[in-house]
Formats: sequence, C-alpha cells, structure tokens
Amino acid sequence: MTQLLIPSINRQALLSKRPVGFAQESDWSLTETPVALPENGEILVRVTHLSLDPAMRGWMNAAKSYIEPVALGAVMRAFGLGEVVASGSDSVPVGSLVTGEFGVQEHALMNASDVEVVERDVAVPPGALLGLLGLTGMTAYFGLLDIAEFKPGQTVLVSGAAGAVGSTVGQIAKALGGRVVGIAGGAEKCAYLTETLGFDAAIDYKSGDVGAAIRAALPNGADVFFDNVGGEILDHALANLAMKARVIICGAVSQYNNTEAGAGPKNYRALLVKRARMEGMVVFDYVERFPEATKQLTEWLGSGQIVSVEDVVRGSIADFPATLMRLFEGKNTGKLVLEIV
Amino acid sequence: MTQLLIPSINRQALLSKRPVGFAQESDWSLTETPVALPENGEILVRVTHLSLDPAMRGWMNAAKSYIEPVALGAVMRAFGLGEVVASGSDSVPVGSLVTGEFGVQEHALMNASDVEVVERDVAVPPGALLGLLGLTGMTAYFGLLDIAEFKPGQTVLVSGAAGAVGSTVGQIAKALGGRVVGIAGGAEKCAYLTETLGFDAAIDYKSGDVGAAIRAALPNGADVFFDNVGGEILDHALANLAMKARVIICGAVSQYNNTEAGAGPKNYRALLVKRARMEGMVVFDYVERFPEATKQLTEWLGSGQIVSVEDVVRGSIADFPATLMRLFEGKNTGKLVLEIV
Repeated sequence: MTQLLIPSINRQALLSKRPVGFAQESDWSLTETPVALPENGEILVRVTHLSLDPAMRGWMNAAKSYIEPVALGAVMRAFGLGEVVASGSDSVPVGSLVTGEFGVQEHALMNASDVEVVERDVAVPPGALLGLLGLTGMTAYFGLLDIAEFKPGQTVLVSGAAGAVGSTVGQIAKALGGRVVGIAGGAEKCAYLTETLGFDAAIDYKSGDVGAAIRAALPNGADVFFDNVGGEILDHALANLAMKARVIICGAVSQYNNTEAGAGPKNYRALLVKRARMEGMVVFDYVERFPEATKQLTEWLGSGQIVSVEDVVRGSIADFPATLMRLFEGKNTGKLVLEIV
Repeated sequence: MTQLLIPSINRQALLSKRPVGFAQESDWSLTETPVALPENGEILVRVTHLSLDPAMRGWMNAAKSYIEPVALGAVMRAFGLGEVVASGSDSVPVGSLVTGEFGVQEHALMNASDVEVVERDVAVPPGALLGLLGLTGMTAYFGLLDIAEFKPGQTVLVSGAAGAVGSTVGQIAKALGGRVVGIAGGAEKCAYLTETLGFDAAIDYKSGDVGAAIRAALPNGADVFFDNVGGEILDHALANLAMKARVIICGAVSQYNNTEAGAGPKNYRALLVKRARMEGMVVFDYVERFPEATKQLTEWLGSGQIVSVEDVVRGSIADFPATLMRLFEGKNTGKLVLEIV
C-alpha cells in the first residue's frame, strides 16, 4: 500500500434533519472524524469537487424514491471528483483522478471498484467531468435520444433550460439539427440561451404569459418536452404538444420543496388528444451505456459544438448547504459545483 | 338504383346546446326532416342500433379534441349498425348490413365508401358488432397490445372495468395469460367481473380505500394500468405501478362533465421513480389494422374465451338523451346500445 501525506481529520456534512418544505442550512451538521486509511481493495480519495444537484433535495426525504434516502446522521450523499491519496488497490494507484459517490466530505474511503478513473491527459475542466461528462450529460443524452427518441428536424421544448441538464439537452438537440426553445427565469438567462448556446428561442417564465409564449415560439407544438421543473410549466407544455409528442419527466425542481405533493398536470388529457406519451427517466438505468454518451459528448466538446456550462463555487464543506440552496432559488446557470479548497 | 319501401320522415336528434358540466336532455332537440334518397355512389341506411359511448360528451364541446366537435344544429354524431334500404351503389346493395358514422337518426344518407359491410352469415349479435367487434373492441385490443405492450404473465389494472372497453381489456388480458384486477362501482359489478368475466380480483371504488385495495390485490404493482376514468382513481393507480409500467389514457369518464379541467394526477412523478410511461390513445389511428383485431376477437368470441357484454336498450331516437346519461351515472354494464324500434 502506498500513500501520500494526508491530514488526520476529515470534515463531513451529515444529514441531521429531514426538511419539511425548503431545505435549510440547519438540516445538516458539520462534524470532524479521523481519516480512515484504506485496507486491501480500498482507496482514500481527497475530494476536490462536489456535484450539487436538485435531486439532493429528494434524497433528504424519508421515503424511498428511485434510490435509498440518506439516513439521518449519515454523510450527505454527493457525487464528486477527487484524487487518490492512499491506495490499497493496484488498479487505482495513488495520484489517480477519480469520480464517484463520495459524499459531502473532504476525504472518502471507497472500494476501488466503486469509482471511475478519469484519464489525466484529457483537457476537460473538473466542472465538465461532473457536468457534461458526468451524470448531467448522461441524463440529457439518454433522456433526449433514448427515451424521447429525438430525431433531427424535430422541435424540443426544455424547462430549466439554463440549468445543468436543460442547457445540455438544448445543445445536444441543436448539434443534431433540432429546433430548440428553452424556458428559464429572467432576461439574463434567456439571453444566454439564445446568444451563447444557440437556442432558437428562450421564454422567460417570470415575465408574461408562458403558454402564449410557447404557442408563439412553437406554433405547431413541441415534438419533445424535456421537463426539469414540473408545476405550471408542465401544464403549459402539455397544452402545446405536437402529435405523437414525448414528454420526459426528468425532474420537478419547482415541486421538490413542497410540503405536500403539488397539483398534478391538469392538462394530462392532452396526451390522449395528441397520442402523446409522458415518461419518467432515471439516469442510473443507463450506466452500461455511459461510454457511448461520453464518447459523443467529448467529441462535441472538443469540436466546440457543445460548451460546458459551469457554475463553480470555491469553498469548504461548511459552504455546502448555502451553495446547494442556489439551485432552488433559481440563482445558478449550468452545472453547480462546489470546489473544495 | 334499387330501393325498398321507406318512410318519408326521418327523425333526428340535433345538438342544440353546448352543455356546461353534465349533459342534459335539453341539449338536444328532436326534429323531423324528409328522407333524402341516395344519388349515384350513395346509400340510404335504416339505422337499427346506435353505439352510445362516453366520448360523446366530449364531442358536444366547442373545442376540437382528437375529432371535430359536433356543430350546433347538426345531427348528433354516433356510430351505428343498420340496413341498406336504398342504394345507388353496386358494391353495397339494398339489404346489406352496414356499420358507420350514421348519427342519431332513423335514416342516414351515406357515401357507400364510408360504411363497412358486415357479413350476414356471421352469428354475432348486433351489440357485439358495435362493441366487441366495433370501436370498443378495437380500442381495447390496440390499447392493451400495441400501446401498453402487454405480455403474457403481466399484471393489468383496469378502471371502468365493467364498462364496454374495460370489460374487454380485462378479458383479452385473461385470454392471453395475464393477471387482471378491475375497478368498478358497486358490489354487483365487481361480482360480475370475477364470477362471469374471470377477473382475478375486483375493487369497488364506492366502498373503502381504493389505494389500499389496489396494493392488496397487486402487491408488486401493475405492469399496465388501462384508464377509462381519470380523477382520483388515476392517482391511486399511479401510486401502485410496477417498474417500467405503462399507463394508457383511454378516457376520463369521471372528468367529462366537469365545468373546468379537473385536478391533474398529483402522483405523476411516480412515472420517474418507476421509469414508467403514460400514453394516450385514439382508436381511429388503428383503422388499417382493424381486420387483425377483428379476426382475433371473433375467434375468442367463437371459442367462448371472451364474452360480449352488452346493455341493449330498446327505444326511439327520442330515448337517446336519457339512455346516454346512464353511462355517466354508472348505471350500465358493458356496451351500451340503443336499439331503434
């Protein structure tokens, strides 16, 4: 076993309360524990970057969803990027760059088989490794191409369009010759979508009649609606589907902090009129096909057809709660990453 | 042109008002017009049986749905069975038995190319021609096998299970080796489903906790939920889906008489957790494949594996409104047919 010099103390954020409604900083407690050294087959990872995702709010609930809830008193679940600082595994030596489910902590003791080794010579920024080439990009890729069966020439409406998944969905559709309309909050995000990311149109849901704006932008309706938001926006989209449309339920960030299940989409009967379908997706179902998406997304990133949209916040484990809140306050654009410094 | 002796007066039910909420008898007016004789390529049909369907409520609304609304002052749309009493077409001679979109009237002047000729020597009762072998059976067959992709061994939950479509869906699934649970209103209908139609279980939505009853009957959830009803029952079903389930939105009879779009299915996010899909269907999309379904359903009917469940009311055109109301009052079992006497 080889190892680098490592600190003796590991700072962690533990889930200490199950929130009702919006999560608050007090739902986590910070703790310090001794750093444990790896045994045979294990590695110790110094976590350098944490992926902050809307799904984290769901993991805090007691109910099992598509994944087990985080237990009270356990380290908050998080995916991240880090460097191996001690190794009991020949296949993942010290110095390796790895991604995995590390949790919100400075050091993670992992089974070597539970991490992915990232090639050091790839000129991809850390935010892109967790975003465009991470679960974010995988979600966008398989959601749009596999579940929604998007084909060149079709129209795509995407909500949460300035977010990590939404901005990637739109860019993939553009790269493949689609017409893309994004829904986002505020003039600045909307300008970013059309001017920087090449969306055909952007709708500011904070300004004016969203339904009318969708109708104006997509007079023949959307072939695909990729929904990250839920709530009223889903209803407006259902009222503007093309025949045989596909609605992808990827997330519902507008609903995650509700104390009760929100109102359902009252326009769901548009599915009948339009012979459309609404389908849920969970990216973990596609793990075996990740290499296919990674290859294609890396090509597009290299050619400049797709840009990695990142919002990297530098801070410590103690900054995790406040940084996560940015997602639910509509404050960020692109992939939100906490760089641990 | 040949013709039989035909009366000079044609009694019709015209749509005279667009209902708000429940339809009422006063939404139609009865009228008498001269019977028109067929010109070249046309036929005159004496309507003997009218198919009464929940979808009729939707056709009364001003908004275009999957089909044009019935115009105010026009003959109410209805599919039916009848006999050709005068013909200007060699291919559909006098005496032919035909089905088509005749409208609520005693005599319909049709283009010969717009009707289907029924073989006289088939020993199928009129109710089955409009039900099991009509649009009802086509809806059940393609909804279950094509859209829901039902496979032997899977579980099927069906709402409106004692209705025309629901009772057929359940029987097809049983004939193909599925496990079938029906939801219907009242002990009598439920007993009919299990004792006569061979359903594995039936749930009386008027008695007790529907969600708990579904969980008890389908502890591993439903692979297919075939929904004719909407509203709360759809929500209960969404909370009880198996992984990769398919929810077919065929109708929403609980909602048709609402003055506003009802509440949407608040449990729609189960689609994400269960990687499930919800899809609408309109039977008219399958017209070219009707012969395939007709052949299979006729075989099952002949072998006794499926029975034709009919509720034939004898009356006149004037009885149409009150008879149609039975559908929305949960009063009928099976295919509701008005036999014109």
